[in-house]
Amino acid sequence: MPSMSAHVVLGIDPGYDRVGWCIARGGGKIFEIIESGQIQTSKTQSVMDRYRQIQREIAQVIEKHHPEACAIESIYFSVSAKTAIRVAEAKGVILGVLAQHSEIEICEYSPPEIKLAVTGNGSATKKEIEKMLHILTNPIKLPKLDDELDAIAIAYTHVMRLR
Amino acid sequence: MPSMSAHVVLGIDPGYDRVGWCIARGGGKIFEIIESGQIQTSKTQSVMDRYRQIQREIAQVIEKHHPEACAIESIYFSVSAKTAIRVAEAKGVILGVLAQHSEIEICEYSPPEIKLAVTGNGSATKKEIEKMLHILTNPIKLPKLDDELDAIAIAYTHVMRLR
Repeated sequence: MPSMSAHVVLGIDPGYDRVGWCIARGGGKIFEIIESGQIQTSKTQSVMDRYRQIQREIAQVIEKHHPEACAIESIYFSVSAKTAIRVAEAKGVILGVLAQHSEIEICEYSPPEIKLAVTGNGSATKKEIEKMLHILTNPIKLPKLDDELDAIAIAYTHVMRLR
Repeated sequence: MPSMSAHVVLGIDPGYDRVGWCIARGGGKIFEIIESGQIQTSKTQSVMDRYRQIQREIAQVIEKHHPEACAIESIYFSVSAKTAIRVAEAKGVILGVLAQHSEIEICEYSPPEIKLAVTGNGSATKKEIEKMLHILTNPIKLPKLDDELDAIAIAYTHVMRLR
């Protein structure tokens, strides 16, 4: 039987300060990180300049890797309502870029769904997720950046759903 | 002394279900509604299709009228947190379109600021705002749609600030 073809998935951890992203190939028993990174905007930029930077860098990732799906974290009120609103706005900017690529399927996952997919426990800690990602992506050297790791976890969650 | 030149302002009341918009000319003693409308998306559309429609229609308004500034309502937790998050996301989609036009200055106004500018009372009711808009825009026949009226009030707020 031919193996299930692997899909190229873009995982995104949205934010206005930092946006984590990950391009992974997955399906069947495959989960492979192709490239990942973090878009870092500056407090000294205007909000609109930050949005322009996010638009530009997300568009570059899409253009380079042509993902078939995008897995993006849904917004939770884990911090303050004000922060959640600003993250939702930045997420809207990202979804606006994705809307220009109707070939990309958009899937949202909540933090508990992501934690559950990666560790088997919907209320896992950041440390537990990181540890599990090290096992799942072995022998890849994982990045040290928080939002980049989150984006990898989100991409992994989507790939798990494909299985 | 030559009169202050009038600015073309785009007022936007953001939303995912409905987006109110208004193009007004203002400055000095002028406040003139050039065109206004409401983008109505459908519950039967996917979220991404709704965003695509909003992107397309806002882009058309900008292309037609070339506003110099956009006045947009800031998100308040007046309804549920879930609704606020979705409105913030849709607002991000709209800001993403505006980000492609660096010549447009973006200004945010909170609901109390808008109420204060239109009626002189920061906690005015919808009815009071509507009544005042009828006086301010006399003898223009005002639209009946809520979000379109809100967009006119937002554009008016910005024009007041220009005075």
